[in-house]
Amino acid sequence: MKLSCAKNELVNALQIVSKAVASKPQTPILSGIYLRAEAGVLELQATNYEIGLVSRIPAEIEEPGQIALSGRYFQEVVRKLPGDNVDISFNREEKIVHIRSNQANFTLLSMNASEFPTVKPVEGTLQFQIKDNILRSLIKKTVFACASDESRPIFTGCYLEVNDTKVTMAATNTHRLAVRYETFDQPIGSIKIIIPSRILQELLHNMTSEIPTDVTVTCSYNQISFAFDNLYMTSRLIEGVFPDYRRVIPPEFATSVTLNAAEFSSAVDRVSLISRAGDYNIIKLEFANNQVHITSNNPDIGNAEEAVPASIEGPELTIAFNAHYIIDVLRNIDSETCQIRLNQPLSPAAVREQGDENYIYIVTPVRTAH
Amino acid sequence: MKLSCAKNELVNALQIVSKAVASKPQTPILSGIYLRAEAGVLELQATNYEIGLVSRIPAEIEEPGQIALSGRYFQEVVRKLPGDNVDISFNREEKIVHIRSNQANFTLLSMNASEFPTVKPVEGTLQFQIKDNILRSLIKKTVFACASDESRPIFTGCYLEVNDTKVTMAATNTHRLAVRYETFDQPIGSIKIIIPSRILQELLHNMTSEIPTDVTVTCSYNQISFAFDNLYMTSRLIEGVFPDYRRVIPPEFATSVTLNAAEFSSAVDRVSLISRAGDYNIIKLEFANNQVHITSNNPDIGNAEEAVPASIEGPELTIAFNAHYIIDVLRNIDSETCQIRLNQPLSPAAVREQGDENYIYIVTPVRTAH
Repeated sequence: MKLSCAKNELVNALQIVSKAVASKPQTPILSGIYLRAEAGVLELQATNYEIGLVSRIPAEIEEPGQIALSGRYFQEVVRKLPGDNVDISFNREEKIVHIRSNQANFTLLSMNASEFPTVKPVEGTLQFQIKDNILRSLIKKTVFACASDESRPIFTGCYLEVNDTKVTMAATNTHRLAVRYETFDQPIGSIKIIIPSRILQELLHNMTSEIPTDVTVTCSYNQISFAFDNLYMTSRLIEGVFPDYRRVIPPEFATSVTLNAAEFSSAVDRVSLISRAGDYNIIKLEFANNQVHITSNNPDIGNAEEAVPASIEGPELTIAFNAHYIIDVLRNIDSETCQIRLNQPLSPAAVREQGDENYIYIVTPVRTAH
Repeated sequence: MKLSCAKNELVNALQIVSKAVASKPQTPILSGIYLRAEAGVLELQATNYEIGLVSRIPAEIEEPGQIALSGRYFQEVVRKLPGDNVDISFNREEKIVHIRSNQANFTLLSMNASEFPTVKPVEGTLQFQIKDNILRSLIKKTVFACASDESRPIFTGCYLEVNDTKVTMAATNTHRLAVRYETFDQPIGSIKIIIPSRILQELLHNMTSEIPTDVTVTCSYNQISFAFDNLYMTSRLIEGVFPDYRRVIPPEFATSVTLNAAEFSSAVDRVSLISRAGDYNIIKLEFANNQVHITSNNPDIGNAEEAVPASIEGPELTIAFNAHYIIDVLRNIDSETCQIRLNQPLSPAAVREQGDENYIYIVTPVRTAH
């Protein structure tokens, strides 16, 4: 293998695929990055068996081939290279890779490329195209609600349900639920799968193009892939049945509160400084007199209170939440104002964006002593 | 106590003094910050017995007094306050401190201010004024050479020697030595002390004024203080006798090399990527043919080499160093070119700034197998 490519393109591609390089690999080869040079393209791959990441960049290829080398050192070396261009060549006899840029010369020991578990294209029972901005909104507004605790795997992923032209993404950690609805122009079949939050986070991180892009999604019975621009990402799916999230959404609410999302968010953030040290990070919200009065109390530290103007329709009430669950959703609200809908102090509440019925966030209140 | 002050001034003052708040305090009161309000000034103090930090800011004082409260929560709360001004008042009966800014109200439990070990002014056997830029240069060019290992305390500090108009600061970890000389306009007496690197680092961090400032230094037999702007910093001194560093500086060198400091620094940084994983981080420098050829080798990873143009006077030679010790000094070189002076492959070498005989850095080479 012998090629030349632009340093910053190689740095970017390495940054993307290195997210799948395991820090504690099951087998040594998984600490490596796989390179294949062919027909004007350098392809980089990394995988930890759970997810696989592939990035392609243009390269001047003098001799095609494939190599694998330590992900960590390859990335560090490339990032520090002095020039705009990088020459990479493989010496088959010595089993070393030469990396050159301006006056700097590195050699890195190579791994056995034939041992690398290359990322196979997912061959799907269902394939569809989705606009990146729609996919981004489905993920961004739900993935934060997943459980981080691995004890119940189905809650560590987002549930994707496609039905003709309707697409729904839902995520829950059993204390809060986020559901986003979108509509396709054309019917695209039917699917119900649970996608690990890990690959969705990576996808969100890499869907940064300002030009609208189509993402090709392919699902098999146990795998999913996303292809766009010069990226290809695969992941296993989570086995299991996602609970019927619809049952969690109350059919109606007695009280509806409208307030400025940014104002409310920074007030909750401040007041929760005091409760954060406690186990449940409890803040109390008193909806009355055209304002929400936010309080927290920690006998070891002190207490905090702040009021934010609010327009309240329906009965006034006081309710308590884990502050994290409120801050999380407010961070992902795009509208200037948000709506909070409530029933009783111990009944689930909803948070919605202003004028957008395609998103709902349900959060269970906390019982407090006072 | 009751006062009002500017939020950003309070945030800055808290940032400064909080460096002396111990994360694992010997006694609970040391996790606190002490506040004294008097005559238009709010004074903040923190200490861990080793160092004491005092910062003063203007305040509108309605009722003078003193309080102590949790450093961690006070800092977090103040940083997040929404307004430009902060009102602080102490309720003596409830023993709580009220903090108000715009719509936000916090109360924090107070500590017993009378238990706080307030920072006492150092009463000195020697007091002198020094320009901040001279003090900054003395510290910046030496403090990085201190030992971080606490096993031999005298090497964890900088040696300060004042003799009439001459002032010298020296630091070593026994493998490398940095010495900076400065001259005063007037004789200021005589002193030989070892100052902990910790307080010098804080001092360097806080001497950021662009206007030339005089720093008042006061030394007692076991303490030192630095006063400037609205800051007062004290530290214990390190007991012991600093070794005669002059004996370590070779009287002459056979070879003198001049090279671009930034070019050399980034090449050493790159080449040491490969050696860094090893115990001694060894790089080899071959001074020959109007260049320095820098190489490193790690049998588990690979190797690296790069050449930088150099003007060499005297015999050519090859010598090896711990790359850290070279990178550290090059980071603190202010001149465009630097000089490396050498004798034999196993004799100490010197690094100097171009045209500045008031600074010398001595580094011991490493013996290599090949």
